[in-house]
Amino acid sequence: MNDMTVTIVGVGLISGSFALGLRDKGFAKHIIGVSRTEASGKRALELGIVNEVLPLIDAIKKSDFIYVAIPVDATIPVLQTVLDNITDKQFVADAGSTKFAMCKAVETHPMRHRFVATHPMWGTEYSGPDAAVKDAFRGRACVICEKDKSDKDIVDIIENIYKTLGMNMIYMDAAAHDMHAAYISHISHITSFALANTVLEKEKEENTIFELAGGGFESTVRLAKSSPAMWAPIFMQNRDNVLDVLNEHITQLRKFKACLEKENIEYLEELMVNANKIKRILK
Amino acid sequence: MNDMTVTIVGVGLISGSFALGLRDKGFAKHIIGVSRTEASGKRALELGIVNEVLPLIDAIKKSDFIYVAIPVDATIPVLQTVLDNITDKQFVADAGSTKFAMCKAVETHPMRHRFVATHPMWGTEYSGPDAAVKDAFRGRACVICEKDKSDKDIVDIIENIYKTLGMNMIYMDAAAHDMHAAYISHISHITSFALANTVLEKEKEENTIFELAGGGFESTVRLAKSSPAMWAPIFMQNRDNVLDVLNEHITQLRKFKACLEKENIEYLEELMVNANKIKRILK
Repeated sequence: MNDMTVTIVGVGLISGSFALGLRDKGFAKHIIGVSRTEASGKRALELGIVNEVLPLIDAIKKSDFIYVAIPVDATIPVLQTVLDNITDKQFVADAGSTKFAMCKAVETHPMRHRFVATHPMWGTEYSGPDAAVKDAFRGRACVICEKDKSDKDIVDIIENIYKTLGMNMIYMDAAAHDMHAAYISHISHITSFALANTVLEKEKEENTIFELAGGGFESTVRLAKSSPAMWAPIFMQNRDNVLDVLNEHITQLRKFKACLEKENIEYLEELMVNANKIKRILK
Repeated sequence: MNDMTVTIVGVGLISGSFALGLRDKGFAKHIIGVSRTEASGKRALELGIVNEVLPLIDAIKKSDFIYVAIPVDATIPVLQTVLDNITDKQFVADAGSTKFAMCKAVETHPMRHRFVATHPMWGTEYSGPDAAVKDAFRGRACVICEKDKSDKDIVDIIENIYKTLGMNMIYMDAAAHDMHAAYISHISHITSFALANTVLEKEKEENTIFELAGGGFESTVRLAKSSPAMWAPIFMQNRDNVLDVLNEHITQLRKFKACLEKENIEYLEELMVNANKIKRILK
């Protein structure tokens, strides 16, 4: 397992960080990059993330393990192509932020058993090869979905890799994953994007934002720097769950609004005391 | 100026950090704490934030400079008491997150000229003496409101202190301050509180939040740990501005909702590309 040839499809934030980890921990002797743009492939080479850049089909042929980390809408056709082109000695995993649509799409593929559906729950607001960080995944959770549909030998390898990179493994079915991801990750991004738009709409003096913005604003709004190409397909694929949480969030904001309109400071404090319960859950 | 006796009213996050800074930079030879609770006063003594704890009136008598950093609703009566009890050789400043109501309340006080209205724009989600941090204010903005209503000698001293602590001074009238603070600080806190309530409402499996929550969730929701006793009065005093921004924020969230409902991925991406403009403003 220590002399694997690995292909990363996508040479960005997640795949790049994964590749740096693989190399650092000695899991791969050769890493191939597959990139949609020539510039990113070249940059990944320069940064030493990959040893060579190849078209997808050529890369698959040379690889033991293919790791797909591209926007979730592009993942489905790429994953199908990979499964169409691998043998029983090869295997593939993805890193997508949604799992249900993808697992559904390959459910009946004869090579489904050589695929492991994973979601390492780490990210930043940056993207591209330069955003890749060695040791990125340490201390984070990694979800594996539908573990029983994947061959045991490859689940063992993938788990070993993620654990060696410092991740805590969690197992869920794809529908449960997408629901929890909506609560815990997707809604944070939507509120951040919407908050940035709110401030950009209301605060016409950009210089004032720049001068005044403190730590609170920055941390709440930093996710609004995230890549639309990555996040729009996530929200679309997880539409029902995201809409459900978004409706609840608007309801919660309306409660704050009603308190202010009615000058009901008691209920306002009550809402905030309830929100403080998040302390129990976050460190 | 280097042998001042300073009183901090409130011995918490802001006043405590200010006191640690004053001591560190040699501005104060003696620091007196005024605390609503015995426990906080005692803790501030233990932590070396203050040299002694006294009731407000006794503390005022012994002090050159009184610094008020308590919830904004409590600030108004305390500030009036301080102004009622100081001479022309003493002076007072506050650190409140709202400025309009307070400036209005003391507008006609005969000692108004011995008061400087300030807002050092720094904070964390923690409170109490243990939350105080030396060097907290470095690199942050500090707003001074209605500078021309304060005597020049004391504005010079206050500016010198804040600048020595590493802050960038900004000047505004109180109404403008409160409007900008609503955009840049208060709305972030409301969305964070509401987001915590959303997740606590929807995600009944607290253990799952705990296991899955990554960096994005944590940074968006951390402000929800903030003190209701501090923030409820801020939202109430800045009600009109906060309602204005909150309405805009709900409108922005509804745009995301409409995109998802209508599966309009083009407009969804457009909203996010617009939000990305915040990159220009944040580092």
